[in-house]
Amino acid sequence: MLSSSTVMSPNADATTNAPDLLSSLRGVCDRHGLESLGRDLSGMSELVRSDMRDVEVFLDAMPFDDDAVRRSAGHLVARGGKRLRPMCVSLASRLGTGFDERIRDLAVAVELVHCATLLHDDVVDVGDRRRGAPTARVLYGNAASIFAGDWLLVEALRLVRRSAGGDVLERLLDRIDAMITAEAIQLDKRGRFEASEEHYFAIVDGKTAALFRWAMYAGGRGGGLAVERCEALERFGRGLGMAFQLVDDALDYEGTSAVLGKEPFADLREGKMTYPLLVAARGDADVRALLERAAKDESTAFGDEAVEIVAKGLAATDAVAVTRRLANEHVDRAIAELSGFEDGPAKRALTIVARATVLRDA
Amino acid sequence: MLSSSTVMSPNADATTNAPDLLSSLRGVCDRHGLESLGRDLSGMSELVRSDMRDVEVFLDAMPFDDDAVRRSAGHLVARGGKRLRPMCVSLASRLGTGFDERIRDLAVAVELVHCATLLHDDVVDVGDRRRGAPTARVLYGNAASIFAGDWLLVEALRLVRRSAGGDVLERLLDRIDAMITAEAIQLDKRGRFEASEEHYFAIVDGKTAALFRWAMYAGGRGGGLAVERCEALERFGRGLGMAFQLVDDALDYEGTSAVLGKEPFADLREGKMTYPLLVAARGDADVRALLERAAKDESTAFGDEAVEIVAKGLAATDAVAVTRRLANEHVDRAIAELSGFEDGPAKRALTIVARATVLRDA
Repeated sequence: MLSSSTVMSPNADATTNAPDLLSSLRGVCDRHGLESLGRDLSGMSELVRSDMRDVEVFLDAMPFDDDAVRRSAGHLVARGGKRLRPMCVSLASRLGTGFDERIRDLAVAVELVHCATLLHDDVVDVGDRRRGAPTARVLYGNAASIFAGDWLLVEALRLVRRSAGGDVLERLLDRIDAMITAEAIQLDKRGRFEASEEHYFAIVDGKTAALFRWAMYAGGRGGGLAVERCEALERFGRGLGMAFQLVDDALDYEGTSAVLGKEPFADLREGKMTYPLLVAARGDADVRALLERAAKDESTAFGDEAVEIVAKGLAATDAVAVTRRLANEHVDRAIAELSGFEDGPAKRALTIVARATVLRDA
Repeated sequence: MLSSSTVMSPNADATTNAPDLLSSLRGVCDRHGLESLGRDLSGMSELVRSDMRDVEVFLDAMPFDDDAVRRSAGHLVARGGKRLRPMCVSLASRLGTGFDERIRDLAVAVELVHCATLLHDDVVDVGDRRRGAPTARVLYGNAASIFAGDWLLVEALRLVRRSAGGDVLERLLDRIDAMITAEAIQLDKRGRFEASEEHYFAIVDGKTAALFRWAMYAGGRGGGLAVERCEALERFGRGLGMAFQLVDDALDYEGTSAVLGKEPFADLREGKMTYPLLVAARGDADVRALLERAAKDESTAFGDEAVEIVAKGLAATDAVAVTRRLANEHVDRAIAELSGFEDGPAKRALTIVARATVLRDA
């Protein structure tokens, strides 16, 4: 399914993935009148193109044809996604001694862990669509998706064990533990729709920021940087991850299904707490009342009427813009963490990735 | 739930688990007229009692109260089981420098990996009962069980990373990979009831023997033994694991529900291929015809009529005794792998465990 000779595969040309992200970011810059950022992106494209191609070549060679378990995994991995986490590993390594096979392994590993969590998430959430296609569990069943997640996790850990020092593996296990804890909190809160910022940020920290943190730490360590410097990179990763999730939340209320690969307001309809909704609840009595009702009757799915109330509340409180502003603050702080590093292409590229993450429209 | 002050906990007295297994094995020896083996067991009991208590104390201190995910994990871990895999780690280490905190970590880890696979298995197989109680998924839901399996796996890997050399962790990841491959084979064959010995042994090798192998290897390495000697221990573990599964299969046809914690012929009713059934299919035309029909109509569940046909076929082919004989052969070969080790309490204890595994009636 992932062989590079398969014309129908979304991954058929292993070289297209990373430049796709970059082209799309460049388009965003142009539309926002940020031509100089757009020009920087062209330079960055050269820098990461070959690294990301190595990642895709490795993924393409995984035995995704063997059985339903591997096919489940392959289906998700082949859908591509943004490969933003592997790109973080690559760029962080280029702040040090640069990209090589060991770094490639770490970049692949972070994508595999990400995909493993998505496979288990889709079983848990009974998710039907992801990345514009049916989920693996729809195509191959829940059982195959559960074992596929297990498999990708184990493969990722094998790569990290063979290619990095013990602290890199240790921190990955710590981050996965944090991700599971976030899932556990979310599960315990299910059916009690709670408008709590503390709870929201705890979950984003665990579910999204954790892996970005590790990607930056692992890339830096793999590139020979000292632990202390890698901890600054880790803080960059955390800020990037928070911003990434906040923008994801914002997009749910402003995007169109063609661009997002899912219906707008899908998060709301699924009863998923998002930051714009928190802002609206804080500032709009109707939204607050709606969420209080939802918290009481243990129903976490919202219909058309609720969507309308929320849409009004979001507009009244300017919640999407507030969310994007908060994302921007996280990105500013993330970029400030890079101040101790010498100026150069990798540092500029990381800055661009962070800025563009907030500007993206998909 | 696992705190040692909780009187209702099945684990309330952390010291009882290992001796329980030993007492039950001693009873078996007595009933089989093997009084000398029974006396040896008394000596062995002293040897492992304190090791296994350390394992239980560690398990008791895990945060099984935190949320539904940890409660799911704790429910299964607290049910106890035989703790045969941790006992292998303990005894293998005692062929070398002996038991200490690092070995305790490895012994805990193997039990956690075992429990992780059971949690995911029960979700995949929609299992309702295990170890004489409702499964975690019945009590806490599938979602919690999936994340609970993930959590136990990550905790196990953290323990192994901190307490063992890289080869021990590498081999654990290899063994987990083999377990997932066995699950994948089993999943692909689902609905096609195939009387194939090759397929049967591939699955037992992956699902059961893999972890016994690692338990012996890890204990030996942790006890300072050279890789080569640990590979002999690994082969002992494989033989023990095969024998263990064969006896498990036999017990399904000869045990009673009070002893087994589940109904006899449960494996058959669930459409699970077992070794006695393979023997019966080989030697009895009615059983063969039954299985051929089952293979065709994609039904893998058997009713009372099928149970009767199989019961007759098992009796006609002496299939349970044949299965126990094969288990004995595996144990003989396993024990032969110990020939290079000096005689002593640990070696004698491993021999007893292997012999008693075949004699056990639960």
